[in-house]
Amino acid sequence: MAVAIGVDVGGTKVLAVGVDLASPGRVVASSRVATPGGGTEDLAAAVVAGAVSVADRVVASGATVVAAGVGLPGLVDVDGCLRAAPNLSQGVGATLRAPLGDALRVPVVVDNDANCATWAEVVAGAGRGAREVVLVTLGTGIGGGLVSGGRLLHGGHGFAGEPGHMVVDPSGAPCPCGRRGCWERYASGSGLERLAREAAGRGEAPSLVSPEDPRGPSGERLAELARAGDGAATAVFATFAGWLGLGLANLVNLLDPELVLVGGGLVDAAELYLGRAREVALPSVMGAGSRPPTRIEAATLGPEAGAIGAALLAAGEGARSRG
Amino acid sequence: MAVAIGVDVGGTKVLAVGVDLASPGRVVASSRVATPGGGTEDLAAAVVAGAVSVADRVVASGATVVAAGVGLPGLVDVDGCLRAAPNLSQGVGATLRAPLGDALRVPVVVDNDANCATWAEVVAGAGRGAREVVLVTLGTGIGGGLVSGGRLLHGGHGFAGEPGHMVVDPSGAPCPCGRRGCWERYASGSGLERLAREAAGRGEAPSLVSPEDPRGPSGERLAELARAGDGAATAVFATFAGWLGLGLANLVNLLDPELVLVGGGLVDAAELYLGRAREVALPSVMGAGSRPPTRIEAATLGPEAGAIGAALLAAGEGARSRG
Repeated sequence: MAVAIGVDVGGTKVLAVGVDLASPGRVVASSRVATPGGGTEDLAAAVVAGAVSVADRVVASGATVVAAGVGLPGLVDVDGCLRAAPNLSQGVGATLRAPLGDALRVPVVVDNDANCATWAEVVAGAGRGAREVVLVTLGTGIGGGLVSGGRLLHGGHGFAGEPGHMVVDPSGAPCPCGRRGCWERYASGSGLERLAREAAGRGEAPSLVSPEDPRGPSGERLAELARAGDGAATAVFATFAGWLGLGLANLVNLLDPELVLVGGGLVDAAELYLGRAREVALPSVMGAGSRPPTRIEAATLGPEAGAIGAALLAAGEGARSRG
Repeated sequence: MAVAIGVDVGGTKVLAVGVDLASPGRVVASSRVATPGGGTEDLAAAVVAGAVSVADRVVASGATVVAAGVGLPGLVDVDGCLRAAPNLSQGVGATLRAPLGDALRVPVVVDNDANCATWAEVVAGAGRGAREVVLVTLGTGIGGGLVSGGRLLHGGHGFAGEPGHMVVDPSGAPCPCGRRGCWERYASGSGLERLAREAAGRGEAPSLVSPEDPRGPSGERLAELARAGDGAATAVFATFAGWLGLGLANLVNLLDPELVLVGGGLVDAAELYLGRAREVALPSVMGAGSRPPTRIEAATLGPEAGAIGAALLAAGEGARSRG
């Protein structure tokens, strides 16, 4: 059995998986450690340790490790170096290709985490068979991955696919990036919580104010409330869905994908907003009514998508990049 | 000599050119007629007549016509049918591939006009040698073309590259498309004139109010005033440049091109806004400072870019689509 190793580095954890390449969605081994707080060397050590731990078990089972990939949460350049990372500042400057290649003796690919997740969905998830796909990951921020002609788009320097900082309201909420009204101020997990705090602050949503949540309800709590029929939480999700749909329509106008996938942590609550986001997005696309509606669906591979995709990207790189 | 015919259909004129394929920017013959107001058959007749008129002269000169392309101002599907066109409603439903192929007996390609202009700039203009390019055309609206890996992106249905209806201010100016705050309400030629009317309406710009321009100054007049040092016109261009830069930064975040080209009619006044647009866009791109700055430049092929690009696209289609 041929197995590829994939490592997904997040702000809080480093997840390594082994993926059976004969059955690309299948994870045969995994390892999880907390993301180290030190510098790039500590990060590289954690990535290598996770990958080696999985590889050892894979080899012990009689299988062969053929490639390894790493997904990083930020701008990854064409040499695999992490150039900017809002939620992993200690990792900026990390170059993982060499240490991981030295440890495993296989070809190594390093890419952006949302690119990895996109690739996983296209090869083994909700995007199977589609050649024109946009994935947005709704987490703390909004990540993205673009597939056209069946290939990931990387742009001129490796940085393509950052829809989160698309400004959609220049007089809107300040963003840590320095601009105002970036899409992820509204349509991400932190955006959802911000919308809830604003509604509570305006006195519109007493059910969202509780002594347990002095800083406002978490996304999980909002979803619980909305599922239980709470009107204020439902209204927050409707506002959220409107912002999500607005940005998705922008992406459809620009890229005309056949399929838009919504992934990331918030996908667990997709039933609370995805239908409404579709209703907002589709009629507002240019020429709607004269064109086939773009499918807007939930991603299906869950929180392991990034690690699985890193593995698949590494395994497929040789063949696919010449495709 | 091998020549390709290119036809650019606009809201007011149909321009046909013959392009020397050994010297791809060189136009060896051209024809221009007013766009007919009738239905799709009249439009097809005008396109065929223009192309035949150019082809006859090309053949009479001893050269050979090898391909023909048409650029249309709207959504062109993968079969070459015009599906939606805000400024050419009489052309919706037109299928020009068959009549033009029958008339010229050469392969015919039909594409969006801004895609054609983009291809012209990449092959023979300001984008020569670049493989990751975004072009925006600033005219009545904003068109666009996307090149990645040296190839035009068409999306799932042929409609990719419509940045004009990217919403950048949901409580902003109403757009004929039905939404509010589309980018082309601010950063196109009509957007520029609207910004001037608003400034005049607020009483901030008496120099922009004149009996000759009861509906406000034209873009050309504004450019004249700004070049002559008029403060109000200069301020309007600064506001315009801010909106242009905001949208360009969105595109750079999403696509990471090595080169952004600004074309369309407003490129003639580029010295009045392009520097400022660059100053707004570049520092606000995600990770600016940790990445090479994207070049933002004026397109160079002028008003014939669409027709030239239609010809080059048709000539290159066979080889390039297999590239």
